[in-house]
Amino acid sequence: MAELKGACVIGQSGGPTSVINASAYGAIKAALENPSITQVLGALNGIRGVLDDRLIDMSKEDPAELALMKHTPSSALGSCRYKLKNPDIDDSDYMRILEIFQKYNVRYFFYNGGNDSMDTCNKISKFLLAHGYECRVMGIPKTIDNDLTGTDHCPGYGSAAKYIATSVMEIYHDARVYDTGMITIIEAMGRNAGWLTASAALASCKGNGPDLIYLPEVPFDMDKFHAEIKAVYEANGKCIVVVSEGIRDKDGKYITEYAGDKAKDGFGHAALGGLAAFLANEVKQKTGAKVRGIEFSLLQRCAAHIASKTDIEESFSAGGMAVKWAAEGVTDKMVGFERSTVNGKYHCECKLFDLDSVANTEKKVPREWINEQGNGLKQPFIDYALPLIQGQTDLLIEDGLPKFVTLRKIKATQL
Amino acid sequence: MAELKGACVIGQSGGPTSVINASAYGAIKAALENPSITQVLGALNGIRGVLDDRLIDMSKEDPAELALMKHTPSSALGSCRYKLKNPDIDDSDYMRILEIFQKYNVRYFFYNGGNDSMDTCNKISKFLLAHGYECRVMGIPKTIDNDLTGTDHCPGYGSAAKYIATSVMEIYHDARVYDTGMITIIEAMGRNAGWLTASAALASCKGNGPDLIYLPEVPFDMDKFHAEIKAVYEANGKCIVVVSEGIRDKDGKYITEYAGDKAKDGFGHAALGGLAAFLANEVKQKTGAKVRGIEFSLLQRCAAHIASKTDIEESFSAGGMAVKWAAEGVTDKMVGFERSTVNGKYHCECKLFDLDSVANTEKKVPREWINEQGNGLKQPFIDYALPLIQGQTDLLIEDGLPKFVTLRKIKATQL
Repeated sequence: MAELKGACVIGQSGGPTSVINASAYGAIKAALENPSITQVLGALNGIRGVLDDRLIDMSKEDPAELALMKHTPSSALGSCRYKLKNPDIDDSDYMRILEIFQKYNVRYFFYNGGNDSMDTCNKISKFLLAHGYECRVMGIPKTIDNDLTGTDHCPGYGSAAKYIATSVMEIYHDARVYDTGMITIIEAMGRNAGWLTASAALASCKGNGPDLIYLPEVPFDMDKFHAEIKAVYEANGKCIVVVSEGIRDKDGKYITEYAGDKAKDGFGHAALGGLAAFLANEVKQKTGAKVRGIEFSLLQRCAAHIASKTDIEESFSAGGMAVKWAAEGVTDKMVGFERSTVNGKYHCECKLFDLDSVANTEKKVPREWINEQGNGLKQPFIDYALPLIQGQTDLLIEDGLPKFVTLRKIKATQL
Repeated sequence: MAELKGACVIGQSGGPTSVINASAYGAIKAALENPSITQVLGALNGIRGVLDDRLIDMSKEDPAELALMKHTPSSALGSCRYKLKNPDIDDSDYMRILEIFQKYNVRYFFYNGGNDSMDTCNKISKFLLAHGYECRVMGIPKTIDNDLTGTDHCPGYGSAAKYIATSVMEIYHDARVYDTGMITIIEAMGRNAGWLTASAALASCKGNGPDLIYLPEVPFDMDKFHAEIKAVYEANGKCIVVVSEGIRDKDGKYITEYAGDKAKDGFGHAALGGLAAFLANEVKQKTGAKVRGIEFSLLQRCAAHIASKTDIEESFSAGGMAVKWAAEGVTDKMVGFERSTVNGKYHCECKLFDLDSVANTEKKVPREWINEQGNGLKQPFIDYALPLIQGQTDLLIEDGLPKFVTLRKIKATQL
């Protein structure tokens, strides 16, 4: 493959994770060091930054400050949830992207995001190809949801899983401190795939795990739920339950919608606080027990202080490999992970996946990794997830608090 | 003072903290090593364990496992919220305590808790004295609320403050990732004193702090609240607000009660999820903006993985000093902290405080540390709180997860 000289654009999209910046920094660092790449541009707020010509020159950042990106949560370049139109119906966005790419001689585009972002990559790549503009397009995945197909796991998942497992262990100790009864219902993110919620099961490795776990992969039955909690509570006086925000009944209706219905009915105890608060109230009414609802909320996706070192390093290397492979001639691919066992130990290497096959599909927790009753995880899940949460972050601490990146964001100029 | 030989009882009471076990372990370790103390008994579930003769022999625990207590959140011996009766009206509990103390020849009683526990210590001490039973009684404080009088600060506060400041910084990054408007309302614990909520201001040291902070020390005005949020939101497109669960209006009515009122009215959008959810909904209705409510819930008091090393070591040493001083003849005191500046640096030493003066009083955030508008903290608060969150925990990590203590809990026998 002939050398392709030109600028690169790096953008971030979708919801934050603790390590999406580790990937972006991996790509930025590799791009700044790559002789084929003449200018490294950061797109502010993802593809919106390209459309609006809000591109910053990454070489103008202080290298030591820029290195803090590796441990800073959320998207340092800003994110967006903008979905590109179907180019067959309206190609104005694509024409604008082409215009901007021509303006800065952009020959490499690295997009750091989830399913939708892989779709964006795919569409841009096809459009540029069809218009005879040579540009290598690479997707760098991220999602705490761990639902991208192909890749063994997704950057961001390990850190969120580590946060959830650790927090569940801590809540376990808190929730059994009194000799009185207590039921705790914890809500984790995951609209369609239960990977995040399942990670609570890792706490069981240390004997501090939840009693019951409900994932969106198994239809949720409210009567069964009440009966299962009651059985544990009557046996132990305590019960810790973890539910996915995405649990649905057999007809596919989200349980959160029932909370909304009650609110509309003026039933009186409607739950704005989300699913955990709603279920806590339902269980309280049934059992008369003290019930507490806890929502991990944003913290599960941005708690960089407890990110997994494995996740950080893998995310960083995915960014770097995207640049390396693109400079070598690869295009239209996502950099994912392949797992193997080397000397009996977990080993992970970057691997290329077709954007076509990744975009807009979802990988769920296999039914056979969930127990028969549908209220807990089995050993194969533990074996899968445990290696992903290993190692502690090297986050710089200053005055007892994390030191996160502050970018100068100097507007790029045409070379 | 003559040497007093006999057993000691150590109990824990009140709500969990990340470091109450560090104090208990400090006391247990010192007691096991002290030649005057013939047996070290742990009371399960605080004073309830004494009343029910549920005492365990701490010498039967594996020393290495016991040492894990120093970094395990919540109360490893179990806690209670049992309030002793007024002995002038009903002295049956006290007679029972005397009976148990005589049975095991208990001559030292160490009680690890908050305001109520200091009151318990005080009452027991006075009763035993009046009944001619020699027993040295010491209070070892703990409370994330930081509201005990006398002592410069309370064991447990620094760790909770570090959790809150760090989490606010992480949420700060998460909440400004999109270029669309966003208001975030975070609820911290603190029913009457605003110390915990105030700790969010520490995030401002790193430039990642909240825009507005509301403490229970200042009467809460809903119209002013809306106006202040609106002003920040219109200027920046983002607004991060931290409120104490204990905010009250000028008539002393808790704002959470208004949420309850709306629920009762069948108003439809009542907030079981607590104050954050309620306020988020109110602000959403006023501004039309995207508003998210986040409740730190139990995590702020049990997140041992981000405990402050300063807090852990101080808590540990308070436990040890209680034993040392009691063996030397001190009784009827609480071990608190005195702060000084040595070579320009924060320095903390244990100091004795009268139980009488500590029990049942509350220390609030000084009004002059809160800004004039009543929506933020001033530098003296930062200077006060920042030293308390310094240093990272040495928590043992195994398989990527914390290793917390599991006690054998062998029932004590009379020597």
